[in-house]
Amino acid sequence: MPKVETFDRLEVLQKVTRLFWDKGYSATSMQEIVEASGLNRSSLYNSFGDKYQLFLACLKYYKGVNHSNIVNCLLSRSPKESLHHFFESTANSILEKTNLKGCFLTNSVAELANRDDEVAAFLNSNMEDMTQLFEDILSKGIETGDFKKDLDVKSTALYLFTSLQGLQLTSMLTNSKQDLLHVVDKILAGL
Amino acid sequence: MPKVETFDRLEVLQKVTRLFWDKGYSATSMQEIVEASGLNRSSLYNSFGDKYQLFLACLKYYKGVNHSNIVNCLLSRSPKESLHHFFESTANSILEKTNLKGCFLTNSVAELANRDDEVAAFLNSNMEDMTQLFEDILSKGIETGDFKKDLDVKSTALYLFTSLQGLQLTSMLTNSKQDLLHVVDKILAGL
Repeated sequence: MPKVETFDRLEVLQKVTRLFWDKGYSATSMQEIVEASGLNRSSLYNSFGDKYQLFLACLKYYKGVNHSNIVNCLLSRSPKESLHHFFESTANSILEKTNLKGCFLTNSVAELANRDDEVAAFLNSNMEDMTQLFEDILSKGIETGDFKKDLDVKSTALYLFTSLQGLQLTSMLTNSKQDLLHVVDKILAGL
Repeated sequence: MPKVETFDRLEVLQKVTRLFWDKGYSATSMQEIVEASGLNRSSLYNSFGDKYQLFLACLKYYKGVNHSNIVNCLLSRSPKESLHHFFESTANSILEKTNLKGCFLTNSVAELANRDDEVAAFLNSNMEDMTQLFEDILSKGIETGDFKKDLDVKSTALYLFTSLQGLQLTSMLTNSKQDLLHVVDKILAGL
């Protein structure tokens, strides 16, 4: 009979994700994971595998939570307002935080996309999902008259994903909300 | 009498920079630095300090080399052509490389801007220098008629820096040169 897990997997993933997000993959030790999760090494290995497998699980967990938040944000208003609100709230939430800055996935692109094929494939699939989401919003906005009729949806979606990643990094470097909101206006000016 | 260094400081910095760029700060061990530099630990400590101080020296070295390359690139053509060439060659050079992908400084923002004040201050000063460079090119381009007369130079410069960082990350995730060149066109479309 398989062992019954006596802990909440999602709660453990949430705690360990915050640790990897804060420190990055390489700087996080297994001992810190043990302390953050409240589980011992043996339970962690049995339930999630090693540090690398746990990191992949955390990327997937973060993406799942993040993606559904983004979908909700992008469906809550008209297409044009949704995009403005999404980019502005991304910049604001990074500015206002004192820890867990930036985006865990974007930070992981910079740390590992060049060095680990499995992480790179996952981050590439996240890019595809995000650009698909942007394509959907852009197509809807063309229908509603929010965006130009001749907008190249596919290229614009990748441009928006690219701008989003850049915005997340710039928001880690500046303290000026006004400067960031001007950048958001520029990003969305051509739609 | 102070000891005479019998090695080329710039050559050592170049080698160690490549290592930090490839692996990131946290994943690089002192032993790997010893092997890459060809110096023993004692020489490294005496000349550069510890791993952290060596990392700061590498950021400064990379920025110096990079900044003068960027200045040359941006002065070699008309303002509009310069910006196009610079963004396109940034995307191309990342696509074509099999290692040392992305930008060492941008990757370091994602890894450390949130966690180390000294690194964050250095990366912030790099942002200021880069936006100043973009401001100069934009002002010159307004004079020559390359760019719109009513362009907000300061906001546009920060937008370009933001887009550049995003482009460096997207170039690590996709293999499509065509897609990236379309993104570059979008980035520069509103100037």
